[in-house]
Amino acid sequence: MTKRLQRALAGEAVWPPPVWLMRQAGRYLPEYREVRARAGDFISLCTAPALAAEVTLQPLRRYEMDAAILFSDILMLPWALGQGLRFAEGEGPRLPPIRDAAGVDALDPSRLASAIAPILETVRLVRAGVGDATLIGFAGSPFTVACYMVEGQGTKEFAHVRRMAYGQPRLFGQLMDIVTAATIEYLAAQIVAGAEVVMLFDSWAGVLSPHLFHTHVTLPTKRIVDALRTRFPDTKIIGFPRGAGTLLAGYAAETGVSAVAIDTGVDPAFAISAVPGNVALQGNLDPMALVAGGDALARETNGILDAMRGRPYVFNLGHGIVPETPPEHVAALMRHIRSH
Amino acid sequence: MTKRLQRALAGEAVWPPPVWLMRQAGRYLPEYREVRARAGDFISLCTAPALAAEVTLQPLRRYEMDAAILFSDILMLPWALGQGLRFAEGEGPRLPPIRDAAGVDALDPSRLASAIAPILETVRLVRAGVGDATLIGFAGSPFTVACYMVEGQGTKEFAHVRRMAYGQPRLFGQLMDIVTAATIEYLAAQIVAGAEVVMLFDSWAGVLSPHLFHTHVTLPTKRIVDALRTRFPDTKIIGFPRGAGTLLAGYAAETGVSAVAIDTGVDPAFAISAVPGNVALQGNLDPMALVAGGDALARETNGILDAMRGRPYVFNLGHGIVPETPPEHVAALMRHIRSH
Repeated sequence: MTKRLQRALAGEAVWPPPVWLMRQAGRYLPEYREVRARAGDFISLCTAPALAAEVTLQPLRRYEMDAAILFSDILMLPWALGQGLRFAEGEGPRLPPIRDAAGVDALDPSRLASAIAPILETVRLVRAGVGDATLIGFAGSPFTVACYMVEGQGTKEFAHVRRMAYGQPRLFGQLMDIVTAATIEYLAAQIVAGAEVVMLFDSWAGVLSPHLFHTHVTLPTKRIVDALRTRFPDTKIIGFPRGAGTLLAGYAAETGVSAVAIDTGVDPAFAISAVPGNVALQGNLDPMALVAGGDALARETNGILDAMRGRPYVFNLGHGIVPETPPEHVAALMRHIRSH
Repeated sequence: MTKRLQRALAGEAVWPPPVWLMRQAGRYLPEYREVRARAGDFISLCTAPALAAEVTLQPLRRYEMDAAILFSDILMLPWALGQGLRFAEGEGPRLPPIRDAAGVDALDPSRLASAIAPILETVRLVRAGVGDATLIGFAGSPFTVACYMVEGQGTKEFAHVRRMAYGQPRLFGQLMDIVTAATIEYLAAQIVAGAEVVMLFDSWAGVLSPHLFHTHVTLPTKRIVDALRTRFPDTKIIGFPRGAGTLLAGYAAETGVSAVAIDTGVDPAFAISAVPGNVALQGNLDPMALVAGGDALARETNGILDAMRGRPYVFNLGHGIVPETPPEHVAALMRHIRSH
């Protein structure tokens, strides 16, 4: 029997909709904080299969989630390519920024297979324990990963990467090609290890002009989708071009993704009209409504459910769950959706 | 004879289009840096009419801009309401955050008129020297100003303000009412002092869900537009809901603004189809294309001009000009637009 999430991603209007939440395994859960403290630093947690599998499965023990998403980070890919990565406590990720040809040349795709081995082991462990839920693997989309690789950290505007894209298009194209090819290899390996669905997170797609969006978001995403679909025709692929706004329609039409995840700022009615009806939608509750709970949560949730009813759709947030979220608000949300 | 910018804002497809650039008076100009160094801190510069007028007019001496925009900052409004404001060098603005009723109650609208007097004097000085160009006054939109008032600084996600909007809607509504009323008074005073057009900057509109966007962006903007239009029926109003994305159409239709400024991420073709033809558009060149110059600048500029031709339109950037911009690239851009 096909699992609920895959049915929705295959174009069926499953109701009540399947549900999972971005960053559902995370700091808002006390049991996560306990494991995190035991693991030491963040990279150690991502590369310790037993611990990473444990935190991946934790939210499924509390809530009737329809999916578990591999506990990892989009920057494990540059890490696996040999770019130094560390997570400074309270500061976010730091990498030695790539600003020239020497930086691009120093990346070593031959390291990838051995570096990701512990992550694939996590996938195998989770798949063995996921039961009726779906295991989602993921990667960052090449542009968003390149943002961090070039900037060396998260920034507000990603000025260096945009300047490189405009001013050194060949060099930036080389970097994007390396990351895109590695992403295909990485996701294919996750699928072989047991991921049933994969998702591409393009958190910073929204900083690009329409022309650069097409070059660096739509086309690489299409390349990844085409490559995976050839090898794994039944594996559904969710794309999340955060901040794509008015560019969603072209993204959905050109990339071939099975589903488009929409951020909190997108009007569901717009997404429904802009995205072809056989492409599922996912999203887009404001994580702050989940923090607030009560009437605000019910109102925002109802607005989304009412709009999406009758369409292939997966309930989710529009951004990741935040650490301040009371776990009981997640329980209330799950009850609300199931009884809608 | 009506000035070129006002003609476009009145619905005429002026060609080549009128041009000005957000933050055209700023750190990329050596003559600005010279005045800035003389003025001391940033607030001193904003409240020194002769210096603020000088930097407002500087870009018009270098380039054939169709407009000068008052040199000031959106946070001069909370400053005028008595909320402490300072600009920490290299860190951006800092205010004592408002998180409760006491913080809202401490705001003092009775201070506004005297506090903004030096800014209005700047408006008078600029108007006397602006010649054939148009003088644009401005304010932040209430939501964006409230973001800084609640957070106390710029942040990536504006989590506190969104939590307050969901969890303490009455308190946040009181704050929004105070800021909205003060914005009307502030912009009306700028118009009386000589501003020929006014612009509302809503830099953080994009962090809101569609429902909150309507409540805290569209409705307060409409209230400001209605109030100003009653008193000053001929003064055109530009709204800039940055990041509004798919919500642009509703914003344009409901607020009554004369023109909608679009950010770099918006596809011009989308804006043209979503915004009624009698409402002008403004934008949306990527400031990083202006840093890069050369082919990238020409290609991005041509894409926008080709799309906007035949429509009431004002050429501009999609975000503010950045300090790294070579001034000669701005000159090249101006020549390119004039000869298109």
